[in-house]
Order: sequence, then C-alpha cells, then structure tokens
Amino acid sequence: MKSFILLFQCNDAKGIVAGISAFILKFDGNIVTADQHSTDPEGGHFFMRVEFIIDDTRHSLKDLKDDFLPIVRKFNATADIYNKHQLLNMGILVSKADHCLIDLLYLWRSKELLVNIPFVISNCNQHRDLVEQFKIPFYFMPAKKDNKMEEQILKIAAETDFLVLARYMQVLTPGFLKSYNKDIINIHHGFLPSFKGSDPYRQALEGGVKVIGSTAHFVNENLDEGPIISQAVEYVTHKDDLENLLSKGRNLEKKALSDAIRSYIDYRIIKYGNKTIVF
Amino acid sequence: MKSFILLFQCNDAKGIVAGISAFILKFDGNIVTADQHSTDPEGGHFFMRVEFIIDDTRHSLKDLKDDFLPIVRKFNATADIYNKHQLLNMGILVSKADHCLIDLLYLWRSKELLVNIPFVISNCNQHRDLVEQFKIPFYFMPAKKDNKMEEQILKIAAETDFLVLARYMQVLTPGFLKSYNKDIINIHHGFLPSFKGSDPYRQALEGGVKVIGSTAHFVNENLDEGPIISQAVEYVTHKDDLENLLSKGRNLEKKALSDAIRSYIDYRIIKYGNKTIVF
Amino acid sequence: MKSFILLFQCNDAKGIVAGISAFILKFDGNIVTADQHSTDPEGGHFFMRVEFIIDDTRHSLKDLKDDFLPIVRKFNATADIYNKHQLLNMGILVSKADHCLIDLLYLWRSKELLVNIPFVISNCNQHRDLVEQFKIPFYFMPAKKDNKMEEQILKIAAETDFLVLARYMQVLTPGFLKSYNKDIINIHHGFLPSFKGSDPYRQALEGGVKVIGSTAHFVNENLDEGPIISQAVEYVTHKDDLENLLSKGRNLEKKALSDAIRSYIDYRIIKYGNKTIVF
Amino acid sequence: MKSFILLFQCNDAKGIVAGISAFILKFDGNIVTADQHSTDPEGGHFFMRVEFIIDDTRHSLKDLKDDFLPIVRKFNATADIYNKHQLLNMGILVSKADHCLIDLLYLWRSKELLVNIPFVISNCNQHRDLVEQFKIPFYFMPAKKDNKMEEQILKIAAETDFLVLARYMQVLTPGFLKSYNKDIINIHHGFLPSFKGSDPYRQALEGGVKVIGSTAHFVNENLDEGPIISQAVEYVTHKDDLENLLSKGRNLEKKALSDAIRSYIDYRIIKYGNKTIVF
Repeated sequence: MKSFILLFQCNDAKGIVAGISAFILKFDGNIVTADQHSTDPEGGHFFMRVEFIIDDTRHSLKDLKDDFLPIVRKFNATADIYNKHQLLNMGILVSKADHCLIDLLYLWRSKELLVNIPFVISNCNQHRDLVEQFKIPFYFMPAKKDNKMEEQILKIAAETDFLVLARYMQVLTPGFLKSYNKDIINIHHGFLPSFKGSDPYRQALEGGVKVIGSTAHFVNENLDEGPIISQAVEYVTHKDDLENLLSKGRNLEKKALSDAIRSYIDYRIIKYGNKTIVF
Repeated sequence: MKSFILLFQCNDAKGIVAGISAFILKFDGNIVTADQHSTDPEGGHFFMRVEFIIDDTRHSLKDLKDDFLPIVRKFNATADIYNKHQLLNMGILVSKADHCLIDLLYLWRSKELLVNIPFVISNCNQHRDLVEQFKIPFYFMPAKKDNKMEEQILKIAAETDFLVLARYMQVLTPGFLKSYNKDIINIHHGFLPSFKGSDPYRQALEGGVKVIGSTAHFVNENLDEGPIISQAVEYVTHKDDLENLLSKGRNLEKKALSDAIRSYIDYRIIKYGNKTIVF
Repeated sequence: MKSFILLFQCNDAKGIVAGISAFILKFDGNIVTADQHSTDPEGGHFFMRVEFIIDDTRHSLKDLKDDFLPIVRKFNATADIYNKHQLLNMGILVSKADHCLIDLLYLWRSKELLVNIPFVISNCNQHRDLVEQFKIPFYFMPAKKDNKMEEQILKIAAETDFLVLARYMQVLTPGFLKSYNKDIINIHHGFLPSFKGSDPYRQALEGGVKVIGSTAHFVNENLDEGPIISQAVEYVTHKDDLENLLSKGRNLEKKALSDAIRSYIDYRIIKYGNKTIVF
Repeated sequence: MKSFILLFQCNDAKGIVAGISAFILKFDGNIVTADQHSTDPEGGHFFMRVEFIIDDTRHSLKDLKDDFLPIVRKFNATADIYNKHQLLNMGILVSKADHCLIDLLYLWRSKELLVNIPFVISNCNQHRDLVEQFKIPFYFMPAKKDNKMEEQILKIAAETDFLVLARYMQVLTPGFLKSYNKDIINIHHGFLPSFKGSDPYRQALEGGVKVIGSTAHFVNENLDEGPIISQAVEYVTHKDDLENLLSKGRNLEKKALSDAIRSYIDYRIIKYGNKTIVF
C-alpha cells in the first residue's frame, strides 16, 4: 500500500468531490485526509487536496494519472497526482548568513525534512566544510551583481524539483526564472509587504515597530512580491537593539522557511493568483 | 438554496467519502467545504464534516436524514445533519465576574455570534440591568453549595440546545448533567490540565510560571476534566502581579470561550473520547 | 503616602540616576519601580521612569517639581513629575464601529482603566444610548470630509488631557492637531507600516498575508505614521474570509488600543523622535 | 572602560537606589541600564540589576566588591558584582536527543551565546563527531539508573560556572546537587507544572490540549519543580500527531533553553524562593 496525493483546482461546480472520491474508490483506495476550500460558497474557485492509499502493486502512478484525465477535463481543472514516497530534489542557494542552511541540513539529517539535497550553492566558500560534513556536494559560485553566474547555476540545478533561497542575497533574473521554470522558495527577513528589499530589520528598528516578522514566499519576477507561503512574527520592545532584532529574526526565518518547505514537500500548497492555499 | 452541515464519525473504511459525496450529489447539492481527519492512516477512527448547499424547496432536512440512514448503518457511524440557518438556543449561566457575559452579549448583538439567547441565569442579581437592556430574560437564582437550585435551572433550560457557563462558580451535580443531557461549555480561568479548581491565577502566580492560559471545555462529571475545545495563552513576567494576571486572564477567557462557542454553533466540533476534533 | 511618577530623558551622562535617587531620598521617598533605557551604552540618549512614594501631607507636587528643576537644568533634560492618583481626562472620538468604544467603557466601569471619560463624540448618533447608560455625555458631531466640525470638537475637548480615536474615521487636520496640542492616540486596523489608509483588512486579504495585526499610535500630521505604541498580531489562513479577518481584527484592535491607553495613563510611554519607549 | 553588573536583593527600604547609584558615581561610573522590582510597593522584597561602565584600569572588580560591602550590610542584602566581559564556563550534559545541543553549539560558534563550553558530557557516544568538530572535548559517560557516574561528572564539571541539561535524561541525585552546588539549568519538554516526568508530549496528546509548551528551569531536589526561567508555547490542533508534537516541541525547547541561558549569562536572573525575576 502506498500513499498518493491529489491536488485539484477549478471553478466550483457540483459533483467534484463525488467524482474524485468515486475515482479513488474505483482503485480500491482509501482516503486518509482530504481538504477543500472554496473562495465563495456560491460559485467561486474550488481547491482540493486528497491523500489516499492504494495497492501500488496493482496500480501505477501512470495508471492513476491516465484514469484521472477525464475528471480533469470535465471540470476544466488544474490538477496532478503525486507519489508521497518519492522524495523531491531540493537545491539550496545561500550567501553568508548560514542559520537557515544549518537548520535545513539538521532537519534533513534527522529525517524531519524528507527531501533529497543534491547540492548547496553559495557565493561564500566558507560553508564548504559544513556542507561536505553532510556528504552533500558544495559549489562555490562567486556570483555578483554584474555576473550572477546563472548559467552555471541552471546547469547544476537542472535535475532539481525546486530551489530554496536560504538567505541568498543575489536577485535572480527574469531570464533565470524563465529558464528554470520550476518553483523557487525564498525566505525574506522581514514582514512582507512591509520592509521589502535590503536591511529589513534596520527598517523595522527605525520604524519603531513593536512586532517583527519574516516571510517565506515563492519567487516571481517582482522582488519580494511572490505568493506568501508562511510568516512568523514575534513581539519586540525598545530594548531590542539591531543585534537583538537580527537574533530574534534568525529564529523567525528558520521557522517560516522550514514551515514553508514542509508544506511544499507534503504537497499542501496550491498557488492561486498571487496567493497560496496552504492546507 | 440552503446550507446544511453533516458530521460523521466511524471506524475508518473504504468508500466513506465517495458514499457521502454521492449522497449529496443525488440531492443535486454542492459541497462548500469538507474536512476529514483520521487518527491513523491505516485503520483508525475517521471524522468528517461537510457543509453543502441544496435547494431546500425541493428537499427537507427530514428527507436528507432519512435518506442518509443507510450510509450511517453501512459504516456503523455516529452522524447527524444540521440546518445551518436554524439558530441554536444558548442558555447562559454566570456568577459575579461579568466580562465573558458582556463579551457574549455584544458579539450576539453585533451578529458575530449567531445564536438565540433565551435567558441568562445568575446567582448575582446585579447583572439584571445589563441583561435586560438586551431584551433578554434574566433569572436570579441564588444558588449555593447546599442548594444549587438545579431543578429550577433545569426547568428554565429545558428548551435550550446547549448551555454556557460564562464563569459560573457553582459546580453542576452529576444529577443535573444527566437530566439536562445536552452539551454544556465551561470556561476555566486556567491553563488546564494545570491549575484545576479555584483561584488558578493565584496558583499560577505562586508557581512562578511565565505563561498563563484559559481553557474552554465541555463539562463532564469530573471537575475541569471534560474534553478541551480551545485554549488561549499569553506570556507574563515577574512584573505581573495578581491583578495583572486577572486582567490578562479576562481577555484570554473571553477569547477561548467565544472561539469555542463559535466552533460549536458552526458544528465544527466532534467529540471523541476525552478529546475534541475542531475543524 | 502617595505615589508619584517621574519621566526623564536627556543625553546620557554620569550621575543621572544618583542625582534622581538622591532627590527622592531627600523627600524621604521610596522608589517602587524604576526603569532606564539608553540608546547606546557609550553616550546615547537616556530615558528613565521612576515611581516613588512620599508622604504627601508634607510635600506637594509643586514642591517636588520646583526642587527637581536644578537636576533638569543640569542634564538639559526633558522631564516631568506626575501624581499617580490624579486621574487623566480622556475624551473619546468614534465613528460607526463600536467594539473599541464598548471595550473601553467596560474597562472603565470595572475600574480596569483608571481615567475620567468626560465625553464621547461621534459622527454616528446611534451610540448615544450606549454611552448615556454609562452616565457619560454624548455629543453627536456629524463630521464629514468637507466639514469636520473641528472647532466644536476642540471646544468640547478643551479640558481633556488626551484624546483617543477609537475607530474615528475622519482624519484630523494639522490645524486641529496644532490647536489641541496634546496627545492623541489612534487605533489603526492594520499592521503598520503595511496597510496604511482605508480598508486594511481587504488589503491584507488581497495580499495573501498569513498574519494580520493592528497598531495603536500617536497621531501626527502624517496619516498613520505617528510613533507606534503597541501592536497586536494573529495568524490567519486561506480559510479566513474578509468577515473573519474583520472579526479577528476587532479583537486585535481592542487589545492594542487598551494596552496603549494603559501604558499612557500609567506614564510608561516616552516619545523620542518617531519612536516610543514603553516601559 | 568595562561593563559590570550588580545584582541585589533585600527587604525593601528607603535609599537603596540612591546608595547604589552614589556608589557607582564614586567610581566615576555610568549606569547603562538598571531594572528594579518590588513584590509590594509598601514594604515587600526588592530586586535590582544595574549594568554600569567604569574605567577598569583604575578600579578592579575586587575594589568594587570591597567597597560595596557596607551597602550590602546596611540593607542586609544578597548581592554580587560581575564582570560582564568574563565569559562563564558552561558545561553541557545531553542524552540522545541532540536538537538543543546543536542549537547551543551553533549559537556559540556564531557568537550569539557568549560563553565558554569546556565540555559536552553524554551517555550517547554518537554525539562525539559533532562535538569534536567544534573543538570541544567530548566525554562519553554511559550513565544509567543504577550507575549515574556522578563522581566522574563532578570531577569534569569542577571548573564550570554552571551546567546545562540539554535534554539529559538521567535525574541528578541530591548528592550531586549538593556537591556541585552551582546552578544547573534544565529544559523540560513540557509545559510545567502540567506534564511532569517522562513523555510529556504523549501526555499532552492524550489530554487533548490545544497548546503545548516547554519549560527551562533551575534544577532543585524535586524533579521538574525548580524555579521556572522561561517557557515557550505553541498552538496545536487535532491534526498534530505525536510526531508533529515532538517536532514543534523541539523548536519550543530550543527557544526556551537558549532564552534561559542568555538571561543567565547576562546576569538577568534573580532567584527568589521558588520563582525567578528575569529582567
């Protein structure tokens, strides 16, 4: 018995859940969890995630997908089925700050983050030892504003399923995004939509805010404006100087980023316009 | 078109979702939201809540229930269907502290809490004016340890769908619970399972805790041990004296109790043993 | 014995605390609490709040102030001494949304908010009954964009110590601020500096954020940009529609505003540039 | 110029702050921050922490301490003065779970935790590689219930200033506590006073709570009952199975423990009976 996950979105209509659950039953499958969401009870957009188990010795993922096509067509849906046991390949890009990198590596090592990490790319060579201790290939790519080395990165990243910018301080070009054409998750060290761009904790300090935050989001062509996946916040006071904000912020970044990645690899995220449904 | 809610629990089995969604489709209904939960992917206990809309000029709630019976029997389930538009009758019992009472009355008046409030019973007559301003009948019941006036309360409460103890300081007897035989929601001013019984904030102060909380739960025959519905917590420091703890606590109590009641009247709670599923 | 509070700020220097504590000792006073803050250990700006008790049958507030003047001059400080037992006069302005108004009135009635409320001004006459039940004068001022009735408001507010905009939807003019020339606390129903201006929850919904907030701040001539006093935040999901955000937001607004007012009337706030120190 | 920290507690009396600040001024020192707390404005127990800078080429810590003695005697106080720049020696004991250990080691390496770590002791040899990568001596001590190897531990720990039990699953004996006679900070993976003893997340799951927590506290002779230093909490739902609770709990444990250690090494904690003042 293996677990599969079905993600589905379409304009709301009658019979979607019935159709999907009958499809699963036909394969003698059992629904483990299912989540639905509708933007409007009377005719909005409909989203669904179903996790089900079937006997995979009798049915392949390809069988499932083929058989599911008529339902997709009937509801003019965007949908796919995933094998829960197939680990995704997650490439990591990182600059100097290493707290998110370390957090991800340890979560990975302790099996709390079920992915493959085929490589870590950094424009700081100093992370090499750390990464190689984990038996993960490390590539030093001294990317700069005027030479982002994106072709080399693309080549290395070709086999990944998605990328994580774990505090990577080079903005990726639209050309890169287009060529890569898969999901990229970024952690922004500020509470978006406030404090876009650089040095958000200094912005927060100077703004005299009483709460700081960090934001994990998908990357799109607009800096720090892609669909938000998760945010983490913490109360601060006048006692918190810049160093304290940075320190509290590091915790928030680790939390928001690892939460977002966990949601992603569990196929709990559906993108819809500039927003996310996170089941 | 009207909204109905179906709550369902049984031992996990294949075809439950398919059966339920086909049932809804048969009535030409549309599923608005659906939530499932299973205690164990391979053969645990299964819980489901479905909200759906159907044309109620063609089908009555009774039709729905009758037609649903075979599914209930097939899966040996505990289940029911509710009319979302039928307001529940919520009786309130309260002692001296009135912050939860006031909160509930204002949420009710501003239509944030969609219930009927057929009465407020109190062993403190001082709340009469407040309650009567809202055109709600007020009953003064000077209940004491040795005369809890439970027969009179039962009589008044006969027509209610559930009761809320909005800081009611008389423990209800097993006899009362048995006779009333419907749900009773209590707000406990402490972070259960710590600090049962009386004066929980003083207990918290003396224990030197750094977080306080409050707990809304169903009442059962064991004091402060019924299934927990919601909890609210807040950080405190050595600066918080008893008065501060009480003040912060009042906010937590209002929040935990109103959250619990909202979940209850939306039929988002399923009881299972000594726990709750809150969708 | 009476309690007094001393607020003090100046460029950092040696001997400030010694000078202030010697001053208090001279009056045979006892320091109850004292808080200091310095923007930089080596020569920044220094802030202090001291609460002390003295025998007020022997020393008046005027004596204290006169005697304190040399210290103020010595350190070129901004400072004042306040009688903790003298209730401040807090005028309230409110538009249609009444949740903050109700919260403040009940906190006031239950002695959790130790102020005088000389009046409530509203451009919605519907709050009259509520306010008058509390024996507080109510003034209906149908202020509009092109006639803000600020002269009439100024006249009524003349005797107040500060004003609270408890969801007052008319922007006060620079002329009003200049004439009133005392502190005004506003509650903004968004997490500043994000979501300035109107309809912040709709902005939050459309931005797909995963945390919402509210902000209490002093009013200055720039809309929603005065020094922030307190913020309250709560996590949200895709399930929260606009109505839910508004409902959660009302709780956040009540919390942020009542926290800010409590800090203010306890003399725990010191303004410094566009920021606040909140002891 | 160097920073020193003075911690002070005694029965409340007039002139304490004046005496202490005059003492600092005599050494031509400048107060950077000062915090006070009193359990009761009219005659309770008084606590103070002062951080000040003086020219340490002219005055030694010993001079300061000697000169401060009369004030200690006058107020019958418990007090001491610490050199902020003198790093404390923090010994770490750990069993199998390594998340707190890793967190502390990285905070230490990135200079966010300013201590010396003279050793890590563990009854699991598997942590040796990790620890030795940081050039920190590692001692494998296969302590068991019937042979806790406390003499060997005591010998190694002789030069430490305090110990941290970073998920150390052997209860230290009263004999050990008496012999060591310095502070020991433990992280308990539950929200005390609920869920003492073993497997607290399972207890939480079975109790159906909606909030989980972790607690950092000083060790005393009663298991999980020493003075609480910090607590961290997070909301959970019925969706959180034991694995999820453990995962969320690890974050809470890291947070509560590192917060507690930071407070400790900054001399921001004063113990008072079974409670802590944490400035």
